Order: sequence, then C-alpha cells, then structure tokens
Amino acid sequence: MADESSSPSTGARADIGVTGLAVMGRNLARNFARNGHVTALHNRTQSRVDELVAQFGAEGDFVASTDLASFVASLKRPRRVMIMVKAGKATDAVIDELVPLLEEGDIVIDGGNAHFDDTRRREQALRAEGLHFVGTGVSGGEEGALNGPSIMPGGSKESYEALGPILESIAVDVDGTPCCTYVGPDGAGHFVKMVHNGIEYADMQLIAEAYDLLRQGLGKTPAELAEVFRTWNEGDLESFLIEITATVLDKVDAETGKALVDVIVDAAEQKGTGRWTVQTALELGVPTTGIAEAVFARSLSGSVDQRKAVQAAGTLVGPSGASLTGAEAEGFVEAVRDALYASKVVAYAQGFDMIQAGSDQYGWDVDKGAMATIWRGGCIIRAQFLNRIKEAYDKDAALASLLLDDYFASAVSNAQDSWRRVVATAVRLGVPVPGFSSALAYYDGLRRERLGAALVQGQRDLFGAHTYGRVDKEGTYHTLWSGDGSEERQDTAGQGSHNPH
Amino acid sequence: MADESSSPSTGARADIGVTGLAVMGRNLARNFARNGHVTALHNRTQSRVDELVAQFGAEGDFVASTDLASFVASLKRPRRVMIMVKAGKATDAVIDELVPLLEEGDIVIDGGNAHFDDTRRREQALRAEGLHFVGTGVSGGEEGALNGPSIMPGGSKESYEALGPILESIAVDVDGTPCCTYVGPDGAGHFVKMVHNGIEYADMQLIAEAYDLLRQGLGKTPAELAEVFRTWNEGDLESFLIEITATVLDKVDAETGKALVDVIVDAAEQKGTGRWTVQTALELGVPTTGIAEAVFARSLSGSVDQRKAVQAAGTLVGPSGASLTGAEAEGFVEAVRDALYASKVVAYAQGFDMIQAGSDQYGWDVDKGAMATIWRGGCIIRAQFLNRIKEAYDKDAALASLLLDDYFASAVSNAQDSWRRVVATAVRLGVPVPGFSSALAYYDGLRRERLGAALVQGQRDLFGAHTYGRVDKEGTYHTLWSGDGSEERQDTAGQGSHNPH
Repeated sequence: MADESSSPSTGARADIGVTGLAVMGRNLARNFARNGHVTALHNRTQSRVDELVAQFGAEGDFVASTDLASFVASLKRPRRVMIMVKAGKATDAVIDELVPLLEEGDIVIDGGNAHFDDTRRREQALRAEGLHFVGTGVSGGEEGALNGPSIMPGGSKESYEALGPILESIAVDVDGTPCCTYVGPDGAGHFVKMVHNGIEYADMQLIAEAYDLLRQGLGKTPAELAEVFRTWNEGDLESFLIEITATVLDKVDAETGKALVDVIVDAAEQKGTGRWTVQTALELGVPTTGIAEAVFARSLSGSVDQRKAVQAAGTLVGPSGASLTGAEAEGFVEAVRDALYASKVVAYAQGFDMIQAGSDQYGWDVDKGAMATIWRGGCIIRAQFLNRIKEAYDKDAALASLLLDDYFASAVSNAQDSWRRVVATAVRLGVPVPGFSSALAYYDGLRRERLGAALVQGQRDLFGAHTYGRVDKEGTYHTLWSGDGSEERQDTAGQGSHNPH
Repeated sequence: MADESSSPSTGARADIGVTGLAVMGRNLARNFARNGHVTALHNRTQSRVDELVAQFGAEGDFVASTDLASFVASLKRPRRVMIMVKAGKATDAVIDELVPLLEEGDIVIDGGNAHFDDTRRREQALRAEGLHFVGTGVSGGEEGALNGPSIMPGGSKESYEALGPILESIAVDVDGTPCCTYVGPDGAGHFVKMVHNGIEYADMQLIAEAYDLLRQGLGKTPAELAEVFRTWNEGDLESFLIEITATVLDKVDAETGKALVDVIVDAAEQKGTGRWTVQTALELGVPTTGIAEAVFARSLSGSVDQRKAVQAAGTLVGPSGASLTGAEAEGFVEAVRDALYASKVVAYAQGFDMIQAGSDQYGWDVDKGAMATIWRGGCIIRAQFLNRIKEAYDKDAALASLLLDDYFASAVSNAQDSWRRVVATAVRLGVPVPGFSSALAYYDGLRRERLGAALVQGQRDLFGAHTYGRVDKEGTYHTLWSGDGSEERQDTAGQGSHNPH
C-alpha cells in the first residue's frame, strides 16, 4: 500500500470506480452515474473508457482515467473500486496491481462470478493489508446491471457501511425495498449467488419437464403451451422464468415458420455455477438433488455424440402408447402445474438448507429471509413466491426445512396426489422427469420415519466393519459377521477386539 | 535421493516393503509374504512391527526394521515401497521422508484411498526425482487385503513391469485371471478405484430401495426378504452385495429378538469417495445420477435433526393406501427384481462413461473391459454381471454406452415395463426410490430424439444472450428478444451487434 502521506487528496472526487468495462462493468458504471454517484472509469483498453463517455457521458458524472494510478487517485476515501473482469486469474491480476495503490480502509469489490473459495482467499489476503474485500453477487445480467440488479455483497460489516448505500441505490426496488443487503463475511455473498444460480438451474429444468410432458402427453403445440404458461403466471407460479417460457414458446422462427423451440438445438449449456453448487453441496453433505438432476440433465443433453449413437442404434426403445386420452388427459394440465409447484418448493427448500449449511460451516450468520427478499427482483429467479419464503423465515428463522412452514407444508401436501399422478404418468409415457421424480423422492424420504439406510449400514458393517448405531441405546456397535455372530460395542475403550477402519 | 555410491547393496534382500502396519497394511504385508515375497516391514510405532512378526512370522519371510533407513536398505533394487498410511498429509509426510533415501528407478506405491488429483501431483513430483510413483486402488477391505484384493495400479508402464507380477500374485483370481492389471499413467488407478466406490454407493442404494419397497408394498418380513434376495442371487443379479443383503436381513438381534435391520439406526455414513466421484463427474460433465442420488440419499438419512423436526411436526403427510393387494401385488417381486437390474445397468453404464471421460481428459487410455475384469473378484461390487461388461467392451471397445451393447440393450428393454410399473407403484405408495427413478429418467432421456433442453436454451438466450444452435444449419444464433425479435448470427465476425456474455 501507498503511504498515507502520498495520498493525493486533491482532485479525488469520485464516489466509486469501475475497472473492467465489458458489458456488465459498463452497465453497472452507467447505473452508478445515473443514480447520482460520481463514477470513475478504467479499462485496460482505453477505447472502452472513451466510448462509454462519448455514448453515455450525459447520463451522469463520469471521471475517465487513462491508467490505474490516476483512476485510484480520482477516488474519494475510503476508495471504492469495483472490479468487473473475468473470474479467476484476471481478477487476481487486477487485485495485484491495485493493492499497492490503495490505502488502509479502502474497499475492493469483486462483482464477477467468483468461486466463494477464491473470495475467501482474497478477502483474507486483503484484510492482512488493511483493505476491505467485498465479493458480491450481481444478478440480472446486462439488463439488470443497467436498470437494477439484485446484489449480494459479502465482506466486513464495516465495508458495508461505506458501500451498502451506494449498492442499494442502484439495486432494483421491490415494494420499496432494495434487492441488496449485507450477506455476511468473506465468501458469503458469492456463496449465496452460487446457490441462487443452482436454484435457477433446478427451476429451469422443472419448467422444461412440465413443457415436455404436456407436449408429449397431450399433444399440445408450443403456442398452446405458451398460453398454459401465461395462465400459470397469474397464480402461485408467477415468476420471471414462467413469463419468459411463454415468450419463448410463442416465438415463431421467421425462416422456417416453425416454433423457434423446435429449431433450437436441444443441447443445454452450463457456465459452471450450477456445477459448483452441487460440488459444494456434496462437500457440505446437503442433499440438493433438484440442482444435481438439472445439471446432469444439461450434461446429458450436451452428450451429442452419445445421443447420436443411441439414435443410430435404435435399440433403446420406449413404452408403447405415447399420449393420454379420455380420463387420463382430464385435469392433467392442472396436475402438472401442481407437480411443478411442489417440485419447485423442494428445490428451494434444498437451496435454503444449503445456505444454512454454508453459513454454519463458515460462520457467516446469513439471514435466509433476507436472501429471499433480495431475490424478489432483478435476478433470474425473481418471483412472488419468494415473499412466501421470506414470511416463513420471518415467522421462524430456525425452521428446519422450508417444507415445515405451514404454508409450504399444506401447499405440498395438497399437491401430492397430482404430483404422484404426474410422475407415474411420465414414467408410463417414457418422458424423462428427473427433476419432478427426485423432488418427490426427497419429499418421501424426508417424511419417512424409517429409511432403507438401515440396510446400508448393515451392509457396511458386514463388509467393512464400519459399525452402526442402535435405535434402543447409545453407542457404536459391530456384529462379528464372520465370527460367532455376536455383537460388540465399539466405542468404549477396552471393549471390542475388532478394529473398524 | 541418496547418491548411487551410498546405496547399501549388501543385505538388501526384500522384494517389497510395507510402511504403515494398521490393519490394511498388516494384511497386505502378510499376503505378500504368504505368496513367497520377502517382505520388509516398517511402522512409526515399532510395536506393530514386532507384533506382526510375533503373531504371523511363520507365514513367510519378513524383514523387520526399526527405522526408515534400515527398512529402505533392506530392499532389493528397484526398491518397491508400499505406503499404507492415512490418505492426505500423512502420505505426503512419509513420501518426504522416503524420497531422500531412495535411488533412481525405485518405486513408491500408495495403496491408500488417495484422491487422484493428489496422486497426479505426487507422481509428477517423484518423476522429477527419477522415481516411480504408483497410486493404486486396493479394494476388498481387511479381508480382501489378506486373502486377495482387487488391485488397480496406476503409474508408469515401466513401474508395472517391476511391480505388476508381485501385485498380481497377491490379488484374487477369477477363472484363472488375477484381479489386477495396469490401469494407466499417474492418477488412473486411484481414479478408477474412486469410480468403483461410486458405483458401490449406487448399487447399495438400489438394493436398499428394492428392500424398502418390497417391505412396504408387500408387507414382507426381513426374513422373507432375505429369502427373496437369496433367490435373486441365483440369477443375473448374482453378486457379493446381493448375497450379504440376504445375510443382513436374516440376522436376528440377540438382545431384542427383532430383525437386526430394525434395530440399526437408519443414518447411513459416507467416507468421501462417493462424494469425490460425483464432484469429479460434475467437473467432467458426465451424468452420474445414480451415484449422486445414492450419496444424497445417505446425506438425507444422516440429517437426523431435520428428520426429527419433520417427524415432530407431522405435517408432511404421505399418500393414503399403504400396501399392494390382489392384482397389484401379483408378480411384484419379479418386477422389482427387473427394476433393480435395469437400474443397476444404468448405474454401471454411467460409471464406465465416467472412466472413459477421465481417461480422455487425462490421456490415460484406460481399457474399460479390463477394469470390469479386475472387479470380478476381491472388491465390494464383485459380480458375475461384470463378465457381461467385459464381453461388451471386448466386442466393441468404443461402445458409446454400455446400454448400446446388445445384451444390455435387450436386458433393459425387456425390463422396462416392470421398471415403469415399479417406479409408478413406489410413487403411489410414497416409498422413495430416487435411484430407480433417476436411472429410468436417464434411460428415457438418453433414448429421446428431442429433449426439453431446447426450451432451456431458448430461455438462456432470452435472459442472458447465451445464444443457441439451429437444427437446420451451422452457426450460433441469438434472437433480439427485447428488440425487433429478429435473429442474428453471432459466430461470424462483423455480424451481430449483441455481445453474448
């Protein structure tokens, strides 16, 4: 860091600076300026700075700079520097250049899609230098960045005091509340953003299953299904993703006159955060089956060569009877809506369990209701539904599962007949519904008093002496399966001759 | 490394040495000695060496040593040193101590459950020192280590020439073929062992689902179900895991007189390799839904506080009608057997896809048929079934999926009516079968010509300008959703004004 004495205090008039002016950085910078903040601009390639000022200079008060030192010098103390470059090495490189130019108490903000482990590492390193490091989730894409994103900042509480008001001013408002709040220390913001993206994967997968099943089962056209989704968007399912599903299904390809969805290659891509979510959930031991099935469904769709080989072979056949008739078809649309809603509740319940587990693991003390609140606008999973989640955690912050909240418990219980009908029908028709069925399996697993896991523990004890607990008393036990068949207590010193491994 | 000149060649008579004489190391050392290899022994706590020699010295030719230097000095060149300590830092510590004592061409073998990334790192480091590092999977637990494990060694081909014959001599034989073969360079052995363990998780989960469903659906007792599994063990399902399932279900708890499985706490534990498998599959982009559902089912079973809260609330209700009667029950046992077999085929197909993906990613050139061959004995998933897999890859090493092999394609196609009936029945009864249902969803997804993923791509293009491919022509496209609705080609320089991110 520079000495305090070398700090050029004259001319330092910018409230915040943005370095990295690709589309996300550019739009955030414009958003800051539009909201009355003097905004310093920096980009490795100078032309991006000049273009922004030339095109949008009238939108607010920008301070253009030609190099990092003058960019830093243009910022008021504590300096607020937002880095909007590619996650990974590029971020580290910018940080390394910035740090020597900054002074104690300055705030470095990473608004990219960093892995929360990287954010934890960077926060620790900058804290040792007397700087604040804020890893923040910014959701809503280009459009949100410009007009109001959902913002999930982590870092020190102190940094939020100096930075929070500015971020809140550019975030989207829902019912007068900005979609931005302090998430928690170090990696908390990027962690929560990661889980958000994971939930987004699950939500999209469930919608795709509903679409596919209704289309196969009832023979409806994409345009007819667009109408179904529009109707659903009037009820409990009201959300951005349901809304755009109708838009996409309505779209006619100008070139072929077909529904665009039938022209699009059915190989879904992924950008990593869904994968990270599941990898982290595995680390934390939290079942996030909805997100996992969604990520794997994308992988399967993208296994193009394998799928082609399967088509070419023609040996993997489906069931006979491809669509529903008569009574089977009756009320099926509503049943699918119920199944979608119940499965969505499960996916969110799993996601919020994961936020809790991360918060416990890293000591973040994340307020889950507040996360639901800031996801109500700006981001991809924005939905009225999130108000219900906020209310559930307002009533009981220590809720053991979202599914235990009265509203969600009755929503899911009421939906269960439809849910079971829909999964059974899909299975009979040969339409893959991994999201619906794994959500239902989770629900049935969670509510069961006894699980088949007792057999698994018995097997593990037999082949690996892994021991088991007993329902009727404390302790850890092992049966001498290949000995006399007696049972030994393993956890008391001096008892038991068998060495579990 | 020590200088060649300082190598004590006199008195070096051991063929192989084992350092780390906990139960696995001790049993492997005895196995080496029993098979005629002069076996050097070392352990940080000397008493373990002395105990081994005192108890089992008559089984073969052991060379006891009191310190690492004399242990190394007792080994013939190229020295073969097997490390059997806890995976992680303990392994690195032993390696660091060993390396200075070794000479060019010596072979360090890690027989623990290391992560293949660690093995890759260690192999690279030791190669730079002129040493061979062999990370090897050893499967079969204590009993296998002593009487014949399945061994999956990675590392250089050169090291296998010097080490392979010794390992093959202690591995179990099936039909005259040892369950040990060269897997591939650096981390290949530990990678394949990891996938083996992942498949083991899936296999056990599927068996637990079959048990749970038959018990709930037909009201059979554990003893009656033991008989069912014994019968199944006569057919296609013949395997160690089916065999021990019968043993566990037959077991009566001496204290209560109840079936032991009803006394065991139904919270299944995990030791990490299942989790690693799924995390790695996500990295590689290979759908391993069967393993993922199995790992998450264990996590759910182990979420004891959450499950207790759910029981206490009593608000998550199941379906009415808890068991099958009349025609529903007819043939249900056989249907569950078919569903179990088909789901198992899917889990193995996914596992072998993952081996291929790892092999491609790291340039290992793993022979998948050979892996099936060495899993036929010694390890937890040993089964006749693996002969079928070997045969499938013998016929076509480049098979795009195990499910495309004639035998498996017809096995699964023939099973599909039962499979669908079983999943639909479980769903109706409220018995969780995440393994059965996700395997069926995978099958249905893989065989479908068109997937709902096209809708996902449309959504992604709308909210994030992520672009899509068209089925009718090359290129990458974006629809100007919030513009005039026209479509732009994105992958040609100069075309398209939108910047995908």
